[in-house]
Amino acid sequence: MITKFLLPEDRIPTTWYNVLADLPKPVPPMLHPGTREPLTPADLAPLFPESLIAQEFSTEAEIDIPGAVIDVYRQWRPSPLVRAHRLERSLDTPARIYFKYEGVSPAGSHKPNTAVPQAYYNKQAGVEKLTTETGAGQWGSSLAMASAYFGLECEVFMVKVSHQQKPYRRALMETFGATVHASPSVLTDAGRAALAADPDASGSLGLAISEAVEAAVKSGGRAKYALGSVLNHVLTHQTVIGQEALLQMELAEDYPDIVIGAAGGGSNFGGLVLPFLREQLRGGRSVRALAVEPASCPTLTQGRYEYDFGDTAGLTPLTMMHTLGHDFVPPSIHAGGLRYHGMAPIISALKDLDLLEARAVPQTACFEAGVLFARNEGIVPAPESTHAVRAAIDEALACKESGEARTILFTLSGHGHFDMQAYTDYFAGKLKD
Amino acid sequence: MITKFLLPEDRIPTTWYNVLADLPKPVPPMLHPGTREPLTPADLAPLFPESLIAQEFSTEAEIDIPGAVIDVYRQWRPSPLVRAHRLERSLDTPARIYFKYEGVSPAGSHKPNTAVPQAYYNKQAGVEKLTTETGAGQWGSSLAMASAYFGLECEVFMVKVSHQQKPYRRALMETFGATVHASPSVLTDAGRAALAADPDASGSLGLAISEAVEAAVKSGGRAKYALGSVLNHVLTHQTVIGQEALLQMELAEDYPDIVIGAAGGGSNFGGLVLPFLREQLRGGRSVRALAVEPASCPTLTQGRYEYDFGDTAGLTPLTMMHTLGHDFVPPSIHAGGLRYHGMAPIISALKDLDLLEARAVPQTACFEAGVLFARNEGIVPAPESTHAVRAAIDEALACKESGEARTILFTLSGHGHFDMQAYTDYFAGKLKD
Repeated sequence: MITKFLLPEDRIPTTWYNVLADLPKPVPPMLHPGTREPLTPADLAPLFPESLIAQEFSTEAEIDIPGAVIDVYRQWRPSPLVRAHRLERSLDTPARIYFKYEGVSPAGSHKPNTAVPQAYYNKQAGVEKLTTETGAGQWGSSLAMASAYFGLECEVFMVKVSHQQKPYRRALMETFGATVHASPSVLTDAGRAALAADPDASGSLGLAISEAVEAAVKSGGRAKYALGSVLNHVLTHQTVIGQEALLQMELAEDYPDIVIGAAGGGSNFGGLVLPFLREQLRGGRSVRALAVEPASCPTLTQGRYEYDFGDTAGLTPLTMMHTLGHDFVPPSIHAGGLRYHGMAPIISALKDLDLLEARAVPQTACFEAGVLFARNEGIVPAPESTHAVRAAIDEALACKESGEARTILFTLSGHGHFDMQAYTDYFAGKLKD
Repeated sequence: MITKFLLPEDRIPTTWYNVLADLPKPVPPMLHPGTREPLTPADLAPLFPESLIAQEFSTEAEIDIPGAVIDVYRQWRPSPLVRAHRLERSLDTPARIYFKYEGVSPAGSHKPNTAVPQAYYNKQAGVEKLTTETGAGQWGSSLAMASAYFGLECEVFMVKVSHQQKPYRRALMETFGATVHASPSVLTDAGRAALAADPDASGSLGLAISEAVEAAVKSGGRAKYALGSVLNHVLTHQTVIGQEALLQMELAEDYPDIVIGAAGGGSNFGGLVLPFLREQLRGGRSVRALAVEPASCPTLTQGRYEYDFGDTAGLTPLTMMHTLGHDFVPPSIHAGGLRYHGMAPIISALKDLDLLEARAVPQTACFEAGVLFARNEGIVPAPESTHAVRAAIDEALACKESGEARTILFTLSGHGHFDMQAYTDYFAGKLKD
């Protein structure tokens, strides 16, 4: 009985996968927020180094992972693919449940997969400082860690409700040497405007992005901005998850009928799913791809597919995506990483092409699943990850009903060690759906 | 450049190592607290199942690991042995630094190595419930997890100062389904007596042990007690760490000149060190074994080697060990797992035999080392583990001074995700030495 399917370091993938090379029709281009003309690489130069901009516009299928990035990945990658034997027995299901566990990274989630290359490329370009936003703190702590590795300063705008709910995430970022501000802050025009409108504003990812972008643009070239999800290059970096999972399913002598991920901005979901969709798009085995989002922020299931801003203040390019509107402020649910009004253009296009399914689930059902998972598999999932756990359990229960022995694979994108207040609130009956 | 030395699941050791088989002279027996006669297995029957009592008295070198225990170990074992390349470069040392990372267990520390077999053997014996104490919460959460796996109830007496400082550790235990009380509590005679003497008592491990033992003894046979360190069988279970590390040092084509562990009760330290000492005791390579303890609870460096109780109330057997006195209440340092007045009899005997070195370090120096480690290796060490990090760094700096390329191996016994308040206090200058 094998439980975890491990690969040695020398099988860390040497390329990321860019799904733009294989899509049946192109993803609509981003538009300049001022001219509404298709965005050019030059338009992004104030925000990102050239190498990342090139990746953002690339339609090459394979993008080389730099050796210096692989050298950092070595510490925890390839991450384990684990067979959830005890959970299966507890559900009494004929399904086989596997999870790809990204919580083994030092920052505790999948986010370092892109934080490390982003820090590396910025360092190569002579950038001294990175600015960013963070919701639950997974992205901020990952970029803080990667910045420490490459000797960069790091300034994080943290959505105020998370800043209050998760002081230990903040402490983690500070341990890595980052500077952390609650957003909205008084440090930017966007933040001051939000505070003027509502001094008690709990913040949103969209607003924190506005602040971080503004801080980079006004740095006089010292600082660039780093985004933890949504953009093409971010999703591409995350495909290291699925690239490994394909090799590990081979080791397991199995193949998923369904691949599942929680979807906030789309990078965790895309990271697992895109390499499996490549196989399908190129004539290989097809797979059900299921994106799971919170019922309180139902971007893919209820948003409109149209051009919208990525941030609240309208500083970012316009992106064709599923969106609830850039001024949508989602309720203060504990899955802070899923509180985003939009969705990655790649994921949105796949949804539009009927290449994936989406499902919205209420948060109490997610925590119920998280507790069941913890009592069987030991790992307490991050609130974001409980969305994938919920869907995986529901699919396994459907298999029990139908008697089908399907293979279910999901990303457990992170652990919940910095989110225990959420579990405390769940047990106390304080969570609302 | 290899960073982590991994073993596949089928190389999880199948035996634990019992150093009592190889010691040059026997460890003095425990004494009955009433009669002061050498303890018999029957004396321990109210507390532990027969199988664990047999292990406690065994002098066999190899103890079989049950298959059901290995099946649980599979989820995270063999744990990685990691070469700290970035830390080495940052210190500019010729030393090679390796750490055996036990924080990959779902509970985040080495403690499940013994929690899982203890839960298993109790379940086999028909026990329905386990009682225990916990300091920082690493042990309590590990036993809570193991109890959930084997369908046992779990009741934890948590030292009050930790109960207050670490609410999220408590939430973790509750997520696993355990019941948690602050100790001293009003639930036991020992707790009530302590509260009568000082209503504001911050508690100690010794007192929490008294409470947990009392709760088991008065359960009418439903419950047994589980101890997370000190006892022979606990140290034996932890040797899975060193058994693996020996194989992994072979993979690395290297061998440690010095092995280092933090020492509270002694099980983390013994877990790594004992298999290396076996090689030495049997005529193989010798190794410096260094136990690191807090300056504020200097059991090995300043305690007396004499018979003493393991708990405050004098309910446990008398044990020949290094002790600060069973009524010693250490200051409320953040390394709660190291706040214990005594030391494992095996470790105490090794110290008496000059088979190991001991060193006491102040906590601010430990946190300084923890931050340096985090900024280079990403992992934020538990406060307990920073003691080993401090000593490893100091040994590496000594190598820089002398120009010697020694090999240093330490256990990073757990991560500090539930201890971020300690780092916050450290940065705020609030920690005292």
